[in-house]
Amino acid sequence: MNDKRTAVVLLSGGLDSATVLAIAQDEGYRVAALSFRYGQRHEHELACADRLCAKAGVAQHVVLDIDLRQFGGSALTSEMAVPKHASVDEIGAGIPVTYVPARNTVFLSFALAWSEVLRASDLFIGVNALDYSGYPDCRREYIEAFEKMANLATKGAVEGSLPIRLRTPLIDLTKAQIIRRGLDLGVDYGLTTSCYDPTTSGLACGGCDACLLRLRGFAENGLADPAAYVA
Amino acid sequence: MNDKRTAVVLLSGGLDSATVLAIAQDEGYRVAALSFRYGQRHEHELACADRLCAKAGVAQHVVLDIDLRQFGGSALTSEMAVPKHASVDEIGAGIPVTYVPARNTVFLSFALAWSEVLRASDLFIGVNALDYSGYPDCRREYIEAFEKMANLATKGAVEGSLPIRLRTPLIDLTKAQIIRRGLDLGVDYGLTTSCYDPTTSGLACGGCDACLLRLRGFAENGLADPAAYVA
Repeated sequence: MNDKRTAVVLLSGGLDSATVLAIAQDEGYRVAALSFRYGQRHEHELACADRLCAKAGVAQHVVLDIDLRQFGGSALTSEMAVPKHASVDEIGAGIPVTYVPARNTVFLSFALAWSEVLRASDLFIGVNALDYSGYPDCRREYIEAFEKMANLATKGAVEGSLPIRLRTPLIDLTKAQIIRRGLDLGVDYGLTTSCYDPTTSGLACGGCDACLLRLRGFAENGLADPAAYVA
Repeated sequence: MNDKRTAVVLLSGGLDSATVLAIAQDEGYRVAALSFRYGQRHEHELACADRLCAKAGVAQHVVLDIDLRQFGGSALTSEMAVPKHASVDEIGAGIPVTYVPARNTVFLSFALAWSEVLRASDLFIGVNALDYSGYPDCRREYIEAFEKMANLATKGAVEGSLPIRLRTPLIDLTKAQIIRRGLDLGVDYGLTTSCYDPTTSGLACGGCDACLLRLRGFAENGLADPAAYVA
Protein backbone atom coordinates (compact mmCIF):
# COMPACT_ATOMS: atom_id res chain seq x y z
CA MET A 1 0.00 0.00 0.00
CA ASN A 2 3.01 2.28 0.25
CA ASP A 3 3.04 3.17 -3.42
CA LYS A 4 -0.47 4.57 -3.26
CA ARG A 5 -0.55 7.99 -4.83
CA THR A 6 -2.10 10.83 -2.89
CA ALA A 7 -4.96 12.97 -4.16
CA VAL A 8 -6.34 16.16 -2.63
CA VAL A 9 -10.15 16.05 -2.86
CA LEU A 10 -12.22 19.20 -2.43
CA LEU A 11 -15.03 18.06 -0.16
CA SER A 12 -17.98 20.36 0.48
CA GLY A 13 -20.16 17.75 2.13
CA GLY A 14 -22.53 17.78 -0.81
CA LEU A 15 -23.70 15.03 -3.13
CA ASP A 16 -21.19 15.78 -5.89
CA SER A 17 -18.03 15.94 -3.78
CA ALA A 18 -19.08 12.84 -1.80
CA THR A 19 -19.24 10.99 -5.11
CA VAL A 20 -15.84 12.36 -6.17
CA LEU A 21 -14.32 11.17 -2.88
CA ALA A 22 -15.61 7.66 -3.56
CA ILE A 23 -14.29 7.74 -7.14
CA ALA A 24 -10.82 8.82 -5.99
CA GLN A 25 -10.70 6.04 -3.42
CA ASP A 26 -11.98 3.54 -5.97
CA GLU A 27 -9.09 4.54 -8.26
CA GLY A 28 -6.69 3.67 -5.44
CA TYR A 29 -5.70 7.12 -4.21
CA ARG A 30 -4.88 7.93 -0.63
CA VAL A 31 -7.27 10.85 -0.12
CA ALA A 32 -6.49 14.12 1.67
CA ALA A 33 -9.82 15.94 1.97
CA LEU A 34 -10.04 19.73 2.00
CA SER A 35 -13.07 21.72 3.14
CA PHE A 36 -13.61 25.43 3.74
CA ARG A 37 -15.42 27.57 6.26
CA TYR A 38 -15.75 30.48 3.85
CA GLY A 39 -18.58 32.45 5.33
CA GLN A 40 -21.28 30.21 3.92
CA ARG A 41 -24.51 30.44 5.87
CA HIS A 42 -24.78 26.72 6.39
CA GLU A 43 -22.13 25.18 8.63
CA HIS A 44 -24.17 22.01 8.37
CA GLU A 45 -22.26 21.04 5.23
CA LEU A 46 -19.02 20.90 7.22
CA ALA A 47 -20.58 18.42 9.62
CA CYS A 48 -21.53 16.36 6.58
CA ALA A 49 -17.94 16.54 5.28
CA ASP A 50 -16.71 15.27 8.66
CA ARG A 51 -19.14 12.35 8.64
CA LEU A 52 -18.25 11.45 5.05
CA CYS A 53 -14.54 11.34 5.97
CA ALA A 54 -15.20 9.18 9.01
CA LYS A 55 -17.32 6.76 6.97
CA ALA A 56 -14.77 6.58 4.14
CA GLY A 57 -11.74 6.21 6.42
CA VAL A 58 -10.08 9.43 5.21
CA ALA A 59 -7.12 10.02 7.51
CA GLN A 60 -6.36 13.63 6.55
CA HIS A 61 -9.16 16.20 6.54
CA VAL A 62 -8.34 19.89 6.82
CA VAL A 63 -11.03 22.56 7.22
CA LEU A 64 -9.62 25.98 6.33
CA ASP A 65 -11.14 29.23 7.53
CA ILE A 66 -11.31 31.83 4.77
CA ASP A 67 -13.73 34.68 5.18
CA LEU A 68 -15.05 35.49 1.72
CA ARG A 69 -17.71 37.65 3.39
CA GLN A 70 -15.15 40.46 3.48
CA PHE A 71 -15.62 40.73 -0.28
CA GLY A 72 -19.40 40.16 -0.47
CA GLY A 73 -21.03 39.66 -3.83
CA SER A 74 -22.95 36.39 -3.32
CA ALA A 75 -26.18 35.16 -1.82
CA LEU A 76 -24.21 32.32 -0.18
CA THR A 77 -21.97 34.66 1.80
CA SER A 78 -24.25 37.61 2.54
CA GLU A 79 -27.78 38.50 3.61
CA MET A 80 -29.04 38.29 0.04
CA ALA A 81 -32.03 35.93 -0.24
CA VAL A 82 -31.50 32.49 -1.81
CA PRO A 83 -34.00 32.13 -4.69
CA LYS A 84 -36.65 29.38 -4.37
CA HIS A 85 -38.61 27.70 -7.14
CA ALA A 86 -41.51 25.28 -7.40
CA SER A 87 -39.71 23.05 -9.93
CA VAL A 88 -36.48 22.58 -11.87
CA ASP A 89 -38.10 24.16 -14.94
CA GLU A 90 -38.28 27.51 -13.17
CA ILE A 91 -34.52 27.74 -12.63
CA GLY A 92 -33.38 30.69 -14.71
CA ALA A 93 -30.58 30.86 -17.25
CA GLY A 94 -27.46 32.92 -16.58
CA ILE A 95 -25.31 33.14 -13.49
CA PRO A 96 -27.33 32.68 -10.28
CA VAL A 97 -26.89 34.96 -7.24
CA THR A 98 -25.60 31.92 -5.36
CA TYR A 99 -22.44 32.14 -7.48
CA VAL A 100 -19.50 33.05 -5.20
CA PRO A 101 -16.92 35.19 -7.02
CA ALA A 102 -13.88 33.12 -8.04
CA ARG A 103 -14.71 30.48 -5.43
CA ASN A 104 -13.40 27.48 -7.32
CA THR A 105 -10.20 29.37 -8.12
CA VAL A 106 -9.68 30.13 -4.43
CA PHE A 107 -10.50 26.55 -3.41
CA LEU A 108 -8.28 24.99 -6.08
CA SER A 109 -5.41 27.33 -5.15
CA PHE A 110 -5.44 26.01 -1.60
CA ALA A 111 -5.70 22.45 -2.91
CA LEU A 112 -2.66 23.18 -5.06
CA ALA A 113 -0.73 24.53 -2.06
CA TRP A 114 -1.55 21.44 -0.02
CA SER A 115 -0.78 19.09 -2.91
CA GLU A 116 2.67 20.61 -3.11
CA VAL A 117 3.35 19.92 0.58
CA LEU A 118 1.90 16.38 0.37
CA ARG A 119 3.52 15.68 -3.03
CA ALA A 120 0.05 14.71 -4.24
CA SER A 121 -0.31 13.97 -7.95
CA ASP A 122 -4.00 14.76 -8.42
CA LEU A 123 -6.57 17.35 -7.38
CA PHE A 124 -10.21 16.23 -7.55
CA ILE A 125 -13.11 18.66 -7.80
CA GLY A 126 -16.78 17.84 -8.33
CA VAL A 127 -17.61 20.48 -10.90
CA ASN A 128 -20.39 19.73 -13.31
CA ALA A 129 -20.95 21.49 -16.61
CA LEU A 130 -24.54 20.36 -17.13
CA ASP A 131 -26.51 21.37 -14.08
CA TYR A 132 -24.50 24.51 -13.39
CA SER A 133 -23.86 25.81 -16.86
CA GLY A 134 -24.17 29.34 -15.50
CA TYR A 135 -21.04 29.04 -13.33
CA PRO A 136 -17.98 30.21 -15.26
CA ASP A 137 -15.59 28.21 -13.07
CA CYS A 138 -17.29 24.87 -13.78
CA ARG A 139 -16.49 24.91 -17.51
CA ARG A 140 -13.96 22.63 -19.13
CA GLU A 141 -11.93 25.51 -20.62
CA TYR A 142 -11.56 27.01 -17.15
CA ILE A 143 -10.44 23.69 -15.67
CA GLU A 144 -7.86 23.22 -18.41
CA ALA A 145 -6.49 26.74 -17.88
CA PHE A 146 -6.22 26.18 -14.13
CA GLU A 147 -4.36 22.92 -14.67
CA LYS A 148 -1.92 24.61 -17.02
CA MET A 149 -1.30 27.42 -14.54
CA ALA A 150 -0.89 24.93 -11.68
CA ASN A 151 1.84 23.13 -13.56
CA LEU A 152 3.81 26.38 -13.76
CA ALA A 153 3.12 27.50 -10.19
CA THR A 154 4.93 25.07 -7.94
CA LYS A 155 8.34 23.65 -7.14
CA GLY A 156 7.52 20.67 -9.30
CA ALA A 157 7.35 22.97 -12.32
CA VAL A 158 10.94 24.08 -11.74
CA GLU A 159 12.33 20.82 -10.43
CA GLY A 160 10.72 18.65 -13.07
CA SER A 161 8.68 16.34 -10.86
CA LEU A 162 5.43 14.78 -12.01
CA PRO A 163 2.71 17.09 -13.31
CA ILE A 164 -0.33 17.90 -11.20
CA ARG A 165 -3.52 16.61 -12.73
CA LEU A 166 -6.83 18.38 -12.15
CA ARG A 167 -9.51 15.69 -12.14
CA THR A 168 -13.19 16.40 -12.81
CA PRO A 169 -14.89 12.99 -13.04
CA LEU A 170 -18.41 14.48 -12.89
CA ILE A 171 -18.02 17.23 -15.43
CA ASP A 172 -20.12 15.59 -18.16
CA LEU A 173 -22.55 13.62 -15.99
CA THR A 174 -26.17 14.42 -15.22
CA LYS A 175 -27.20 14.52 -11.58
CA ALA A 176 -28.97 11.19 -12.06
CA GLN A 177 -25.78 9.66 -13.48
CA ILE A 178 -23.71 11.03 -10.61
CA ILE A 179 -26.07 9.46 -8.09
CA ARG A 180 -26.03 6.13 -9.95
CA ARG A 181 -22.22 6.13 -9.96
CA GLY A 182 -22.07 6.97 -6.25
CA LEU A 183 -24.58 4.32 -5.27
CA ASP A 184 -22.54 1.74 -7.21
CA LEU A 185 -19.53 2.79 -5.10
CA GLY A 186 -21.49 2.59 -1.84
CA VAL A 187 -21.88 6.32 -1.09
CA ASP A 188 -24.37 6.99 1.70
CA TYR A 189 -26.14 10.09 0.38
CA GLY A 190 -27.98 10.37 3.66
CA LEU A 191 -24.70 11.80 5.00
CA THR A 192 -24.63 14.59 2.41
CA THR A 193 -26.32 17.96 2.08
CA SER A 194 -26.86 20.04 -1.04
CA CYS A 195 -29.27 22.75 0.13
CA TYR A 196 -28.25 26.40 -0.23
CA ASP A 197 -30.56 27.43 2.61
CA PRO A 198 -31.00 24.68 5.21
CA THR A 199 -32.49 25.09 8.69
CA THR A 200 -30.04 25.42 11.57
CA SER A 201 -30.58 21.75 12.35
CA GLY A 202 -29.63 20.87 8.77
CA LEU A 203 -32.99 20.16 7.14
CA ALA A 204 -32.94 20.91 3.41
CA CYS A 205 -35.41 23.53 2.08
CA GLY A 206 -36.50 21.56 -0.98
CA GLY A 207 -36.97 24.70 -3.05
CA CYS A 208 -33.54 26.11 -3.90
CA ASP A 209 -31.81 25.23 -7.17
CA ALA A 210 -29.53 22.71 -5.47
CA CYS A 211 -32.40 20.87 -3.76
CA LEU A 212 -34.50 20.77 -6.93
CA LEU A 213 -31.67 19.37 -9.07
CA ARG A 214 -30.85 16.78 -6.44
CA LEU A 215 -34.44 15.67 -5.97
CA ARG A 216 -34.84 15.27 -9.72
CA GLY A 217 -31.64 13.21 -9.86
CA PHE A 218 -32.98 10.72 -7.34
CA ALA A 219 -36.40 10.69 -8.99
CA GLU A 220 -34.83 9.86 -12.37
CA ASN A 221 -33.23 6.85 -10.70
CA GLY A 222 -36.63 5.85 -9.29
CA LEU A 223 -35.35 6.53 -5.78
CA ALA A 224 -36.23 8.69 -2.80
CA ASP A 225 -33.57 11.15 -1.64
CA PRO A 226 -32.35 9.91 1.78
CA ALA A 227 -31.57 13.51 2.90
CA ALA A 228 -33.86 15.12 5.47
CA TYR A 229 -36.14 17.89 4.18
CA VAL A 230 -38.39 20.33 5.99
CA ALA A 231 -41.90 18.90 6.12
CA MET B 1 -12.54 61.42 -11.04
CA ASN B 2 -15.54 59.12 -11.40
CA ASP B 3 -14.19 57.32 -14.44
CA LYS B 4 -11.10 56.17 -12.58
CA ARG B 5 -10.60 52.48 -13.06
CA THR B 6 -10.08 50.33 -10.00
CA ALA B 7 -7.08 48.08 -9.44
CA VAL B 8 -6.58 45.48 -6.73
CA VAL B 9 -3.00 45.72 -5.46
CA LEU B 10 -1.42 42.91 -3.43
CA LEU B 11 0.32 44.75 -0.62
CA SER B 12 2.65 42.87 1.70
CA GLY B 13 4.13 45.95 3.32
CA GLY B 14 7.48 45.26 1.68
CA LEU B 15 9.61 47.38 -0.61
CA ASP B 16 8.36 45.81 -3.84
CA SER B 17 4.62 46.03 -3.18
CA ALA B 18 4.96 49.59 -1.83
CA THR B 19 6.51 50.51 -5.17
CA VAL B 20 3.73 48.74 -7.06
CA LEU B 21 1.11 50.65 -5.09
CA ALA B 22 2.75 53.94 -6.09
CA ILE B 23 2.94 52.85 -9.74
CA ALA B 24 -0.75 51.92 -9.81
CA GLN B 25 -1.73 55.26 -8.32
CA ASP B 26 0.59 57.08 -10.72
CA GLU B 27 -1.22 55.37 -13.62
CA GLY B 28 -4.49 56.80 -12.30
CA TYR B 29 -6.06 53.75 -10.71
CA ARG B 30 -8.27 53.86 -7.66
CA VAL B 31 -6.44 51.29 -5.52
CA ALA B 32 -8.03 48.58 -3.40
CA ALA B 33 -5.19 47.07 -1.36
CA LEU B 34 -5.20 43.43 -0.26
CA SER B 35 -2.98 41.97 2.46
CA PHE B 36 -2.92 38.59 4.17
CA ARG B 37 -2.36 37.28 7.65
CA TYR B 38 -1.26 33.86 6.41
CA GLY B 39 0.64 32.50 9.35
CA GLN B 40 3.81 34.45 8.61
CA ARG B 41 5.99 34.90 11.67
CA HIS B 42 6.23 38.64 11.27
CA GLU B 43 3.00 40.58 11.80
CA HIS B 44 5.15 43.68 11.53
CA GLU B 45 4.68 43.69 7.76
CA LEU B 46 0.91 44.16 8.21
CA ALA B 47 1.55 47.28 10.30
CA CYS B 48 3.73 48.51 7.43
CA ALA B 49 0.93 47.81 4.94
CA ASP B 50 -1.46 49.85 7.10
CA ARG B 51 0.93 52.77 7.26
CA LEU B 52 1.56 52.67 3.53
CA CYS B 53 -2.19 52.80 2.84
CA ALA B 54 -2.66 55.71 5.24
CA LYS B 55 0.21 57.62 3.63
CA ALA B 56 -1.01 56.93 0.09
CA GLY B 57 -4.66 57.72 0.80
CA VAL B 58 -5.88 54.21 -0.07
CA ALA B 59 -9.53 54.06 0.95
CA GLN B 60 -10.04 50.29 0.73
CA HIS B 61 -7.61 47.98 2.48
CA VAL B 62 -8.67 44.44 3.38
CA VAL B 63 -6.51 42.12 5.48
CA LEU B 64 -7.63 38.51 5.02
CA ASP B 65 -6.87 35.78 7.52
CA ILE B 66 -5.78 32.57 5.83
CA ASP B 67 -3.88 30.05 7.87
CA LEU B 68 -1.35 28.44 5.56
CA ARG B 69 0.32 26.94 8.64
CA GLN B 70 -2.22 24.12 8.45
CA PHE B 71 -0.33 22.92 5.38
CA GLY B 72 3.26 23.63 6.55
CA GLY B 73 6.12 23.30 4.09
CA SER B 74 7.84 26.70 4.44
CA ALA B 75 10.29 28.46 6.75
CA LEU B 76 8.00 31.51 6.67
CA THR B 77 5.04 29.64 8.16
CA SER B 78 6.70 27.14 10.48
CA GLU B 79 9.44 26.76 13.04
CA MET B 80 12.05 26.09 10.35
CA ALA B 81 15.03 28.45 10.67
CA VAL B 82 15.36 31.32 8.18
CA PRO B 83 18.81 31.05 6.51
CA LYS B 84 21.24 33.93 7.11
CA HIS B 85 24.23 34.94 5.03
CA ALA B 86 27.11 37.37 5.30
CA SER B 87 26.58 38.77 1.79
CA VAL B 88 24.42 38.54 -1.31
CA ASP B 89 27.01 36.32 -2.98
CA GLU B 90 26.30 33.56 -0.49
CA ILE B 91 22.62 33.26 -1.42
CA GLY B 92 22.26 29.80 -2.95
CA ALA B 93 20.66 28.82 -6.22
CA GLY B 94 17.42 26.84 -6.33
CA ILE B 95 14.20 27.32 -4.41
CA PRO B 96 14.83 28.68 -0.90
CA VAL B 97 13.12 27.27 2.20
CA THR B 98 11.33 30.62 2.55
CA TYR B 99 9.25 29.69 -0.49
CA VAL B 100 5.62 29.24 0.59
CA PRO B 101 3.82 26.56 -1.48
CA ALA B 102 1.56 28.13 -4.10
CA ARG B 103 1.44 31.40 -2.18
CA ASN B 104 1.14 33.73 -5.15
CA THR B 105 -1.59 31.52 -6.61
CA VAL B 106 -3.56 31.72 -3.37
CA PHE B 107 -3.01 35.49 -3.07
CA LEU B 108 -3.91 36.17 -6.70
CA SER B 109 -7.03 34.01 -6.41
CA PHE B 110 -8.34 36.20 -3.61
CA ALA B 111 -7.38 39.30 -5.59
CA LEU B 112 -9.37 37.89 -8.49
CA ALA B 113 -12.40 37.26 -6.24
CA TRP B 114 -12.29 40.81 -4.94
CA SER B 115 -11.73 42.28 -8.39
CA GLU B 116 -14.91 40.59 -9.54
CA VAL B 117 -16.94 42.17 -6.73
CA LEU B 118 -15.34 45.60 -7.26
CA ARG B 119 -15.43 45.30 -11.07
CA ALA B 120 -11.72 46.11 -11.04
CA SER B 121 -9.90 45.87 -14.35
CA ASP B 122 -6.37 45.19 -13.12
CA LEU B 123 -4.56 43.11 -10.51
CA PHE B 124 -1.10 44.35 -9.53
CA ILE B 125 1.54 42.09 -7.97
CA GLY B 126 5.15 42.95 -7.21
CA VAL B 127 6.79 39.77 -8.44
CA ASN B 128 10.34 40.02 -9.67
CA ALA B 129 12.06 37.50 -11.89
CA LEU B 130 15.62 38.65 -11.23
CA ASP B 131 16.16 38.59 -7.49
CA TYR B 132 13.89 35.62 -6.88
CA SER B 133 14.62 33.43 -9.85
CA GLY B 134 14.16 30.39 -7.62
CA TYR B 135 10.45 31.08 -7.00
CA PRO B 136 8.34 29.28 -9.63
CA ASP B 137 5.40 31.65 -9.15
CA CYS B 138 7.41 34.77 -9.99
CA ARG B 139 8.14 33.72 -13.57
CA ARG B 140 6.57 35.37 -16.59
CA GLU B 141 5.13 32.11 -17.96
CA TYR B 142 3.35 31.52 -14.66
CA ILE B 143 1.93 35.04 -14.64
CA GLU B 144 0.65 34.65 -18.21
CA ALA B 145 -1.00 31.32 -17.37
CA PHE B 146 -2.71 32.82 -14.31
CA GLU B 147 -4.02 35.72 -16.38
CA LYS B 148 -5.43 33.34 -18.96
CA MET B 149 -7.11 31.25 -16.28
CA ALA B 150 -8.48 34.37 -14.56
CA ASN B 151 -10.15 35.48 -17.78
CA LEU B 152 -12.06 32.17 -17.88
CA ALA B 153 -12.91 32.06 -14.16
CA THR B 154 -15.31 34.89 -13.54
CA LYS B 155 -18.69 36.28 -14.53
CA GLY B 156 -16.92 38.64 -16.90
CA ALA B 157 -15.70 35.63 -18.90
CA VAL B 158 -19.26 34.51 -19.51
CA GLU B 159 -20.89 37.93 -19.76
CA GLY B 160 -18.25 39.42 -22.01
CA SER B 161 -17.13 42.33 -19.84
CA LEU B 162 -13.61 43.72 -19.98
CA PRO B 163 -10.72 41.32 -19.46
CA ILE B 164 -8.81 41.26 -16.20
CA ARG B 165 -5.20 42.27 -16.62
CA LEU B 166 -2.49 40.89 -14.34
CA ARG B 167 0.12 43.62 -13.98
CA THR B 168 3.72 42.97 -12.94
CA PRO B 169 5.55 46.29 -13.35
CA LEU B 170 8.63 45.09 -11.44
CA ILE B 171 9.14 41.75 -13.12
CA ASP B 172 12.22 42.74 -15.13
CA LEU B 173 13.72 45.33 -12.77
CA THR B 174 16.68 44.95 -10.44
CA LYS B 175 16.18 45.86 -6.81
CA ALA B 176 18.16 49.04 -7.41
CA GLN B 177 15.89 49.98 -10.32
CA ILE B 178 12.78 49.28 -8.23
CA ILE B 179 14.05 51.59 -5.49
CA ARG B 180 14.92 54.31 -8.03
CA ARG B 181 11.41 54.10 -9.52
CA GLY B 182 9.79 54.24 -6.10
CA LEU B 183 11.83 57.20 -4.94
CA ASP B 184 10.86 59.07 -8.12
CA LEU B 185 7.22 58.44 -7.17
CA GLY B 186 7.76 59.59 -3.58
CA VAL B 187 7.60 56.22 -1.80
CA ASP B 188 8.76 56.44 1.80
CA TYR B 189 10.73 53.20 2.15
CA GLY B 190 11.12 53.89 5.86
CA LEU B 191 7.50 52.67 6.10
CA THR B 192 8.31 49.30 4.51
CA THR B 193 9.81 46.06 5.77
CA SER B 194 11.43 43.27 3.79
CA CYS B 195 13.05 41.11 6.47
CA TYR B 196 12.04 37.44 6.70
CA ASP B 197 13.01 37.30 10.38
CA PRO B 198 12.53 40.66 12.12
CA THR B 199 12.52 41.24 15.88
CA THR B 200 9.13 41.54 17.56
CA SER B 201 9.51 45.31 17.50
CA GLY B 202 10.08 45.19 13.74
CA LEU B 203 13.84 45.62 13.43
CA ALA B 204 15.22 43.91 10.31
CA CYS B 205 17.88 41.21 10.81
CA GLY B 206 20.20 42.37 8.01
CA GLY B 207 21.27 38.82 7.19
CA CYS B 208 18.38 37.05 5.46
CA ASP B 209 18.13 36.95 1.66
CA ALA B 210 15.49 39.69 1.61
CA CYS B 211 17.56 42.08 3.78
CA LEU B 212 20.73 41.47 1.78
CA LEU B 213 19.05 42.10 -1.58
CA ARG B 214 17.39 45.23 -0.26
CA LEU B 215 20.57 46.64 1.28
CA ARG B 216 22.44 46.06 -1.97
CA GLY B 217 19.66 47.83 -3.90
CA PHE B 218 20.01 50.95 -1.79
CA ALA B 219 23.82 50.75 -1.91
CA GLU B 220 23.74 50.58 -5.72
CA ASN B 221 21.78 53.84 -5.66
CA GLY B 222 24.39 55.35 -3.34
CA LEU B 223 21.79 55.54 -0.58
CA ALA B 224 21.32 54.29 2.95
CA ASP B 225 18.29 52.07 3.58
CA PRO B 226 15.90 54.08 5.78
CA ALA B 227 14.55 50.87 7.40
CA ALA B 228 15.56 50.11 11.01
CA TYR B 229 18.01 47.22 11.47
CA VAL B 230 19.25 45.46 14.59
CA ALA B 231 22.50 47.06 15.70
